[in-house]
Amino acid sequence: MIKLENGWNTSVPGFEAGAAMAGVKKEGRYDVSVIFSTVPAACGAVFTQNKFCASPVLLDREVNKGGYAQAIVANSGCANACTGVKGYEDAKAMQAHTAEALGIKPEEVFVCSTGVIGAFMPMDRILKGIDDAVEVMDENGGEIAAKGIQTTDTVIKHTAYEGIVGGKKVTFGGIAKGAGMIHPNMATMLTFITTDAAIAPDVLKRAVKKAADLSFNMVVVDGDTSTNDTMIVLANGLAENEIILSEDHPDYPAFFEMLLACASDLSRMIAKDGEGATKFLEVNVIGAKDFADAKKAAMAIAKSPLVKTAIFGEDANWGRITCAAGYSGADLDPEKASLVVGGVCLFENGLNKNVSDEVMEPIMAQKEISLTMDLAVGEAKATVWTCDFSYDYVKINGDYRT
Amino acid sequence: MIKLENGWNTSVPGFEAGAAMAGVKKEGRYDVSVIFSTVPAACGAVFTQNKFCASPVLLDREVNKGGYAQAIVANSGCANACTGVKGYEDAKAMQAHTAEALGIKPEEVFVCSTGVIGAFMPMDRILKGIDDAVEVMDENGGEIAAKGIQTTDTVIKHTAYEGIVGGKKVTFGGIAKGAGMIHPNMATMLTFITTDAAIAPDVLKRAVKKAADLSFNMVVVDGDTSTNDTMIVLANGLAENEIILSEDHPDYPAFFEMLLACASDLSRMIAKDGEGATKFLEVNVIGAKDFADAKKAAMAIAKSPLVKTAIFGEDANWGRITCAAGYSGADLDPEKASLVVGGVCLFENGLNKNVSDEVMEPIMAQKEISLTMDLAVGEAKATVWTCDFSYDYVKINGDYRT
Repeated sequence: MIKLENGWNTSVPGFEAGAAMAGVKKEGRYDVSVIFSTVPAACGAVFTQNKFCASPVLLDREVNKGGYAQAIVANSGCANACTGVKGYEDAKAMQAHTAEALGIKPEEVFVCSTGVIGAFMPMDRILKGIDDAVEVMDENGGEIAAKGIQTTDTVIKHTAYEGIVGGKKVTFGGIAKGAGMIHPNMATMLTFITTDAAIAPDVLKRAVKKAADLSFNMVVVDGDTSTNDTMIVLANGLAENEIILSEDHPDYPAFFEMLLACASDLSRMIAKDGEGATKFLEVNVIGAKDFADAKKAAMAIAKSPLVKTAIFGEDANWGRITCAAGYSGADLDPEKASLVVGGVCLFENGLNKNVSDEVMEPIMAQKEISLTMDLAVGEAKATVWTCDFSYDYVKINGDYRT
Repeated sequence: MIKLENGWNTSVPGFEAGAAMAGVKKEGRYDVSVIFSTVPAACGAVFTQNKFCASPVLLDREVNKGGYAQAIVANSGCANACTGVKGYEDAKAMQAHTAEALGIKPEEVFVCSTGVIGAFMPMDRILKGIDDAVEVMDENGGEIAAKGIQTTDTVIKHTAYEGIVGGKKVTFGGIAKGAGMIHPNMATMLTFITTDAAIAPDVLKRAVKKAADLSFNMVVVDGDTSTNDTMIVLANGLAENEIILSEDHPDYPAFFEMLLACASDLSRMIAKDGEGATKFLEVNVIGAKDFADAKKAAMAIAKSPLVKTAIFGEDANWGRITCAAGYSGADLDPEKASLVVGGVCLFENGLNKNVSDEVMEPIMAQKEISLTMDLAVGEAKATVWTCDFSYDYVKINGDYRT
């Protein structure tokens, strides 16, 4: 498996993409994107668990049930969330319009929206944007399609891998947007991964769920889950590998490894691009009773405002980290637990190791910091990615009126 | 029931208190406090659920089982947490020393510590401080005892009520410390409530648990639960009301009302004194399936950094509030839910009410803001108190090294 230098969804054979500046966001910015597979593709998707989910999410759940899809249409600038019956009709109209422009069935089109909550979609501009995006669509359109889904992102998040599945060259390409559940009324993590591998829809669905649980669901910026979060994977089979019909198929591990590599890359990019982030933090929990417990403890550490502000302040404040593990609800042995930050053990067998500030200063000054908390009660582990909590987080989220 | 003007633990007949400047904190600050009942008192206490609980908490759980106690000894400056076997022995030594100085049994003395995590107690100074505090102890010592448990608190939190229970005048007095799980390595919410009401220990224990669940457990500053959180209630029976032997006793409601009034007062003071807080926020959730769900939704709203920064920025950002309710896991009807902020309905039947900024500006500019989210699926409700999230929170917690 090798990582491609400048990979996008359209790095994958059989995928085209396009985007338009439809005026939903500020002028001069792409805000409507279309990703298209020239042949029907198996699909797998996971969605936000937020009970106020956006209208497109309701629609996409139906598309996902169908098992095959050929296109994704997405807009930024308006989330079409908390918009009731009219919002659902607008999402249906986007779907129908895209299907018509592409000559496919509406039920093969995923619809995604991100942006302001509670506002209705400017449908004339959106439909015009879909036409324009389809018009320019080609196998080089991956980058503008990625731009079309950005909101407050400061970098374009994309990745791609090439590898061998069942003796055939297979490519995966992915893009994502999201930087927490950010900005005034802005929402959402969106990620679209394409591949030419051949896999059955039901196996793909489970693989996507599993990959999401190990990647996007392990990212926390501010702990807020948006109304629109969506991950969609399309697998069009053009690589002509023997179709993967179950998890027991010998090629499944290779497939899953590439899918997870894409998803993990994009997840880390989202954590690094957290609002106002100055540092990237990897939280490893080991020695847990089970994965759920490991995740619980890692999430508690990663979400703690006290831990996040300490990381911002370059302070190896182990008390806050162990404390967060302690209240997480995860099983732990307080007399055997230990904590390593940046390779230095600060806390062992429940006791302070009295490591000097001089030792920790250069470690805490780094841009990327990793810590490992051992709960000392089992064998399970989990890794969560997050960022620090800076003045700019407060500024971006609190101060935009001034 | 009337609120006393300048009430403390020692406003209650039969209670004395004292404090000393033992040099655990900076010079010139009280840091060791003793609260004493001249007769044995029924006791009820609740403690942190943090798995890394401090040594004094382990000890106090045993005291609490005994049902009766006569004293509380507390220090600030050192939390005696993550200190292992030595920490436990130090807590035992504090207990024994206090008992000896007061001429009571060690198992009738609660021990509380708050301050730096992971450091051992300066036992010589602590024991000397206990002697000094007992030396000056009298019925006017409530205020200095309150000072002796402060760490980063900016105000002294105290309250007292007088009322009639079973035809007798009964007094309740309470103090608290805490402002989140704050400051470099500092921890803890501590609260001590005294009363001269007569009540059986088992009834008192359950009443304390219930009162804590409706007050202190409904406060959230940063969502971090410390290693030392402790609430202790001592009831010495000197009011000579007929002893309350069960929840069915006709005087129980009056007793519970006064206990809850004290606990609620102190809880709100803690939320208002949250680190860097510029505003106090009351989050009401109504229309929930049950209390657990109502609390879940209210806590999700109150803990959300996006909501807290919006309140700081005086932004009536209803999308963030409904979104937090949506991901809380609480049952809700997205098409019937509504949200009122400062008396103005911003969101109704799942739709934006398009209230203008002009309407909301004066409301959001107030120091105390109340919001009510209706989940529209039941009759249960809950109220959580919190504060906003300001630059100063990041400064206090992240920037102290510079």
